[in-house]
Amino acid sequence: MNDTAKNQRHQQRMARKKALIDASIARADQEKGLLLVLTGNGKGKSSSAFGMVGRSLGHGMKVGVCQFLKSRTDTGEEAFFGKQSDCEWHVLGDGFTWETQNREQDIATSQRGWAVAQRMLTDPAYQLVVLDELTYLLNYGYLDADQVLDELAERPPMQHVVVTGRAASEALRELADTVAEIADVKHAYRDGVMAQRGIDL
Amino acid sequence: MNDTAKNQRHQQRMARKKALIDASIARADQEKGLLLVLTGNGKGKSSSAFGMVGRSLGHGMKVGVCQFLKSRTDTGEEAFFGKQSDCEWHVLGDGFTWETQNREQDIATSQRGWAVAQRMLTDPAYQLVVLDELTYLLNYGYLDADQVLDELAERPPMQHVVVTGRAASEALRELADTVAEIADVKHAYRDGVMAQRGIDL
Repeated sequence: MNDTAKNQRHQQRMARKKALIDASIARADQEKGLLLVLTGNGKGKSSSAFGMVGRSLGHGMKVGVCQFLKSRTDTGEEAFFGKQSDCEWHVLGDGFTWETQNREQDIATSQRGWAVAQRMLTDPAYQLVVLDELTYLLNYGYLDADQVLDELAERPPMQHVVVTGRAASEALRELADTVAEIADVKHAYRDGVMAQRGIDL
Repeated sequence: MNDTAKNQRHQQRMARKKALIDASIARADQEKGLLLVLTGNGKGKSSSAFGMVGRSLGHGMKVGVCQFLKSRTDTGEEAFFGKQSDCEWHVLGDGFTWETQNREQDIATSQRGWAVAQRMLTDPAYQLVVLDELTYLLNYGYLDADQVLDELAERPPMQHVVVTGRAASEALRELADTVAEIADVKHAYRDGVMAQRGIDL
């Protein structure tokens, strides 16, 4: 096939593709607050939530972030997003649950953290709420999963919520509008590369 | 099992987990510039890259972003990250390839865009470079994939690069340090919800 034929074929194929995509955009006409669940073992669940924080701030939206497991406060995400005037940032963890090794303490910490989230989930002024690593608190039974799901369902209708963490439950997936499952195809960590600033923290 | 027994068992299980994790952290002692590939059809490839932009800026790193397909400049990501002093933001596309329907124009646009990336990939001052939606340019043959992969391999050794886009090739995955494949389990778009500010743009 010569270049002219190649270019013509490309034009025709893309015109068909455009017609399909335009039709699907025309069908998608609703606006609503979305519940997004980012799960799986791969790289990019929290990063993706933080990217949406940036996007939202770019549109002048008010954002609240709850980090449920992390206790360190020297991360790049907090240093950067935490200082933005429209972004409220809370580091609510005691460290990973294998650091504390104390289930009662983890439950108390989780419940204190959830109270912060509850305040955001009942206030329509927060247009995006990130509940980072929430799945662990649900899966370990540190929070009452039914109650948490009810509170998510009853949030202000235009509020977006992003939940991150491995092993999101079936019930959480069902409630969500968008679910992305991030597979860990390959990770530098397994080749002996430590967590890198800017990438992992 | 009563609560005391439950708590003890938890403590023992978590102590074992901590020992395993500590050992694996001790093994991961290298620092290097990572090549991350975020691919798959699910939500969160570009968002995740932008989250790493935020993290990097939080550590005072210099960041360069090339958006290869997008032509719109009203996105939240550009409004927010583009104004940060350590972040250089380039919207290099003519729109999606089904918008232009012109293969020769797409090739010319891609090559002009790649020249911007080349400047970053040869300058160690850029500590993170995001090549957003690069895979499409490679998969459509708008850029020479072998040459692009060579240039990625030869970049400054401490420079992190994040490549996003569907259908990353086997060769690109092989070159990468970290590969995350984001599966589209569920997407609000299919329920008729339009792209939402803060979440999708």
